[in-house]
Amino acid sequence: MPELRKDPIVGRWVIISTDRAKRPTDFARESVKMKGGFCPFCYGNEGKTPPEIQAYRPNQNGAQPQRDTPGWTVRVVPNKFPALGIEGNLDRQAEGMFDKMNGVGAHEVIVENNDHNASLATLPPKKIEDVLWTFRDRILDLKKDRRLKYILIFKNHGEGAGATLEHAHSQLIALPVVPIYVAEEIEGAKQYYLYKERCVFCDIARQEIEAGTRVVAENDDFLTIAPYAPRFPFETWILPKQHESAFENSSSRMFQNLAKSIRTLLNKANRVLDDPPYNLVIHSSPTQDSSNDHYHWHIEFVPKLTKVGGFEWGTGFYINPTPPEEAAKFLREATVEEPAAAVAG
Amino acid sequence: MPELRKDPIVGRWVIISTDRAKRPTDFARESVKMKGGFCPFCYGNEGKTPPEIQAYRPNQNGAQPQRDTPGWTVRVVPNKFPALGIEGNLDRQAEGMFDKMNGVGAHEVIVENNDHNASLATLPPKKIEDVLWTFRDRILDLKKDRRLKYILIFKNHGEGAGATLEHAHSQLIALPVVPIYVAEEIEGAKQYYLYKERCVFCDIARQEIEAGTRVVAENDDFLTIAPYAPRFPFETWILPKQHESAFENSSSRMFQNLAKSIRTLLNKANRVLDDPPYNLVIHSSPTQDSSNDHYHWHIEFVPKLTKVGGFEWGTGFYINPTPPEEAAKFLREATVEEPAAAVAG
Repeated sequence: MPELRKDPIVGRWVIISTDRAKRPTDFARESVKMKGGFCPFCYGNEGKTPPEIQAYRPNQNGAQPQRDTPGWTVRVVPNKFPALGIEGNLDRQAEGMFDKMNGVGAHEVIVENNDHNASLATLPPKKIEDVLWTFRDRILDLKKDRRLKYILIFKNHGEGAGATLEHAHSQLIALPVVPIYVAEEIEGAKQYYLYKERCVFCDIARQEIEAGTRVVAENDDFLTIAPYAPRFPFETWILPKQHESAFENSSSRMFQNLAKSIRTLLNKANRVLDDPPYNLVIHSSPTQDSSNDHYHWHIEFVPKLTKVGGFEWGTGFYINPTPPEEAAKFLREATVEEPAAAVAG
Repeated sequence: MPELRKDPIVGRWVIISTDRAKRPTDFARESVKMKGGFCPFCYGNEGKTPPEIQAYRPNQNGAQPQRDTPGWTVRVVPNKFPALGIEGNLDRQAEGMFDKMNGVGAHEVIVENNDHNASLATLPPKKIEDVLWTFRDRILDLKKDRRLKYILIFKNHGEGAGATLEHAHSQLIALPVVPIYVAEEIEGAKQYYLYKERCVFCDIARQEIEAGTRVVAENDDFLTIAPYAPRFPFETWILPKQHESAFENSSSRMFQNLAKSIRTLLNKANRVLDDPPYNLVIHSSPTQDSSNDHYHWHIEFVPKLTKVGGFEWGTGFYINPTPPEEAAKFLREATVEEPAAAVAG
């Protein structure tokens, strides 16, 4: 069972993942997995992953769909090397002055499509929408488990961004604690709300639309911007224009327009930055507070362009060589093959 | 003039470094600088850096040492592409709902020795001590400037850890704000002190010495440990055994023993992890609060072994595949050529 341990100074929980324990010599080997060969996410290899949790399978002429067989379009499986285990109690306890608990939670992989060579950027909007619906399905299912306080959905694309398998996939991690920077973001938004009685993200959206200089793209439901104080070059956020605290509360029209926003952003980034590795993270409200006035869910997209000196992680001090106004201009002006017009109300 | 901008949600300041502004096509080129060729930090090339701020030059037979010429052992120069500028006022102002100020501060490079092929790990302890004294000199000088609230000293070793030049060097950044995670670390330590009336780091040192399982090395003044809840595999801290809030307050005996602790740790890491890229950061008190009971300065050492998915930076959620007890055991048991015995009281 993995272990969650709390740093006694800042209160950050980390997972000590005993099941994947690494000896010094194991680290060098890590980068070879991407190099072609066998892919556990391709049709016909369903038996090589843990049994599927759910899958979308188009109507198979009335035949009963078979689990763990080909024919799916989006497929969710447990991570084969999970950072957390779903069984057991938290069993919070002390270790001298330190605190720990069992690593209870879920770690799942969402295989985004069956084509090994497709990427989220090249999928048609309808297929991206299916991926978003899958995220929602998994969130709603896991929210029933009261031990889980936060559900994190993210995507590492490309080896440089931490992906170890090539076939397009996202990951879901359900945690018994709220991650520290997410908690701080929520707390910051709450403080702003207490003072102004307005959501800080709603205010940002309004000001950015008016200024225009940091806008990358826009449709009826979503605004894509370079944030005012980005940590990384070409960091980009996608946020709903109307206040909404949790991703899973989105309407079906919103998922349609979000799929288009994601597709547009990824294709613009690919054009301007030559298919960069990237991380995409959904920031949403904790499971037990998914309808509130102060927090506004959004997506943060960060292409991996620079070698981040580790001191940035340790200090939270970032030097960004690209002003967001310039980044936004490059992305805004990049022409990409647009999907069909956004769905209006 | 670079600009400091504040994220309105979490309150994190970032530097938008307009002087180094990067266009999309500039990023790919970044990794070539390491590949041999001309080195501005070698003897004879002193004219290729901005004029030196200070240098140690051994007695040159009574001859007056000449600035910006060979003969030095440690040399400090302004960063040629500084993230901050030393001239001007902070000029704090609003931009709509956002906050910004001028990027006032210092960005210096400490060239650790004159031998292009030496590294901090291979220098004799006495030469590492000279580097530490140089850090202290620079801190004491910059502390006179009341605009500067925090002085960050760090080292990126190897391309994988963000270094762009091969010749061994450290960097100093003096800031008009305290970096956010440092501020949180200080606040966490303060809360602990308010509750327990003891320094949290002193408590950690005591418990770790007693337990022994996470101890890497120890001498009369310093303890080297794998922390209880490390974010990264083989993350290691060096902390003074006696309470001391700021690096620059250390006695000369402490610098002697710290040089030995650093040398031992780097050589152990090189042996166990095969000369990894690494980051080393000095965590110390803010310039205007350098003598206090709650914060305890220390060094954090992080070898760059895994590709960190960017989502870790965004969420503060870390999965560490190596339990610190295992990492400490590998490092503790690695035999390295030890420098002469530590200086005892």
